[in-house]
Amino acid sequence: MKVGTTHYRSIWRNGDEVRIIDQRWLPHEFRVVTLRSTQDFATAIADMWVRGAPLIGATAAYGMAASMADDASDANLNASYDTLHATRPTAVNLRWALDAMRALLAPLPQATRAEAALVKAAEICDEDVETNRMIGVHGLDLIRQIAAAKSAAKSAGEPVRLLTHCNAGWLATVDWGTATSPMYHAHEAGIPIHVFADETRPRNQGALLTAWELGQHGVPHDLIVDNAGGHLMQHGEVDMVIVGTDRTTAQGDVCNKIGTYLKALAARDNGVPFYVALPSPTIDWTLRDGLAEIPIEDRDGREVTHVQGKDASGATADVQISPDTTSARNPAFDVTPARLVTGLITERGVCEPSAAGLAALFPEKAGA
Amino acid sequence: MKVGTTHYRSIWRNGDEVRIIDQRWLPHEFRVVTLRSTQDFATAIADMWVRGAPLIGATAAYGMAASMADDASDANLNASYDTLHATRPTAVNLRWALDAMRALLAPLPQATRAEAALVKAAEICDEDVETNRMIGVHGLDLIRQIAAAKSAAKSAGEPVRLLTHCNAGWLATVDWGTATSPMYHAHEAGIPIHVFADETRPRNQGALLTAWELGQHGVPHDLIVDNAGGHLMQHGEVDMVIVGTDRTTAQGDVCNKIGTYLKALAARDNGVPFYVALPSPTIDWTLRDGLAEIPIEDRDGREVTHVQGKDASGATADVQISPDTTSARNPAFDVTPARLVTGLITERGVCEPSAAGLAALFPEKAGA
Repeated sequence: MKVGTTHYRSIWRNGDEVRIIDQRWLPHEFRVVTLRSTQDFATAIADMWVRGAPLIGATAAYGMAASMADDASDANLNASYDTLHATRPTAVNLRWALDAMRALLAPLPQATRAEAALVKAAEICDEDVETNRMIGVHGLDLIRQIAAAKSAAKSAGEPVRLLTHCNAGWLATVDWGTATSPMYHAHEAGIPIHVFADETRPRNQGALLTAWELGQHGVPHDLIVDNAGGHLMQHGEVDMVIVGTDRTTAQGDVCNKIGTYLKALAARDNGVPFYVALPSPTIDWTLRDGLAEIPIEDRDGREVTHVQGKDASGATADVQISPDTTSARNPAFDVTPARLVTGLITERGVCEPSAAGLAALFPEKAGA
Repeated sequence: MKVGTTHYRSIWRNGDEVRIIDQRWLPHEFRVVTLRSTQDFATAIADMWVRGAPLIGATAAYGMAASMADDASDANLNASYDTLHATRPTAVNLRWALDAMRALLAPLPQATRAEAALVKAAEICDEDVETNRMIGVHGLDLIRQIAAAKSAAKSAGEPVRLLTHCNAGWLATVDWGTATSPMYHAHEAGIPIHVFADETRPRNQGALLTAWELGQHGVPHDLIVDNAGGHLMQHGEVDMVIVGTDRTTAQGDVCNKIGTYLKALAARDNGVPFYVALPSPTIDWTLRDGLAEIPIEDRDGREVTHVQGKDASGATADVQISPDTTSARNPAFDVTPARLVTGLITERGVCEPSAAGLAALFPEKAGA
């Protein structure tokens, strides 16, 4: 999407080079970095210069391509796979992209591997963009319906007010984003919208990234604390919630950034539709009961006791918000039960969050 | 309660002087300040060296006493009332304390006003302490019941896990606090407890104050982000929620710090008892429907876009977490409907959150 007046993807080729946005410095600095060696790509993933499942997968794919340009041997193919996989070993998309690359490359003559790897990495990127674009097309229909209902009611002229949590934006994917794709589509279609972006403690992806990308693309929005969404919904100030997901079960339970569940409860309590935007690879067809089956990572308490931002000198700095001796619990995700979800917006359309709903859209997977 | 090994109130006399804790520096510095002139007291309230409705009232009462010691004329009595009232004009307790002081002092001969004011201010403090102590006694019964149920079940030996939001602690009152009073009572009674303290964005009173006072008094606790409580409840890690309130309607709707409503929803969804601790002056007998009738203050967005803490040098500093151009919405409170509240813990006992429940405990008020 747009940064200033220029359209960017989150990863792109520039001649023979691959470039990314080093997201660690957002929103205060927009730094573009060229990745060359396999190690460059591994560092970019491990140290979170890039983040978001689809973008991690795409970056790993280009990392394999860089590795093949350097040394197309079987030994290096396997070593690079291992190096890249070790960066974020629990990232499902990372493994998926690396497996796809190795499956393609291993049978090929060494002389053709580098070029084939580049083509495949570009394909992985384009597929992600297309998937997210289609999520946007389907989500746009929902926003259009709300806009139509509003213009038929006394709230004519008022924008469609959307709330989102964390960053399921284009910065987490190659382009469009997942939860943001319907928003960008609506904005480009001329439907007036206003987005409330939850700051998303502890890592503040909403404040750092979602607010930035919406602002750069020109989408009207306000930052709110994670505590505020329920109050806004009680007072009729939110027409629809759209969030992303890290993992959704075959029955429609949604694992997403910590705090999503609280917003789903508030949406249900106030009759606000609560949608989850998800590319189908996010569906874990082996899982049913998300609450019982999805293990939740407890992360370092320092993310809770400290907050990063821009200090008075303009430098990036941490401040400690609690007493020196205070310990913190830091569960990173929560699970929103399917019963609280209005619908799932996938690249194939919108379905109800249930085994039947998902099976109707993805019959070839649901039978597996 | 304790700071280190010494018992403190949040405001106290030391010979002829009145001292407070300058809470702006907590938790990183414990600064005690002596207040002398009426203006000292006014500044302490206006600039939030002290905060919390009961403590503001007590500070204003001592401010009137200081003013009478200086000049006990009617003119100064009225001028001091106005000066102190202008500090936080919407604070109900402030007005109540000032009205009580003026009603007492105005009919008295000027020569006796200074001494009478000091006695009355001390009374206001002692009454607050006693009210909060009784909230603790009644809340302790509830915690005791949970502890008994746990020791009869397989969770024997496990502490009673309590969650609270914001700071309804002794720092917001003269001593004991409201939501924390049952916790301190349980701790002193030898019932093992563990408290989850919500950080409470945007002003982080949970991280800055609640974590500090629990830690100083030796109560086991963890800081959590506001997003985490629902997840902990889903996984059976919270036995009871206790929060304070700024204003409760005659039907039991509870206005409290933004985000309280989300915790109440999660408690209801997971069968966790949700209690509100309140001194009866917090009940607004003129209000019925809290959602419709209680206006919610929208505060400066800078509280959302910036976070205060201790920087690497140990100094108190702000960091900006969002892009320079991002605007923020900052509603300061929300209303938890009575239907989500398990019970109200008052100084007279525990009641159901309804007109009938409150009327049974406070018949003299409910008829008004």
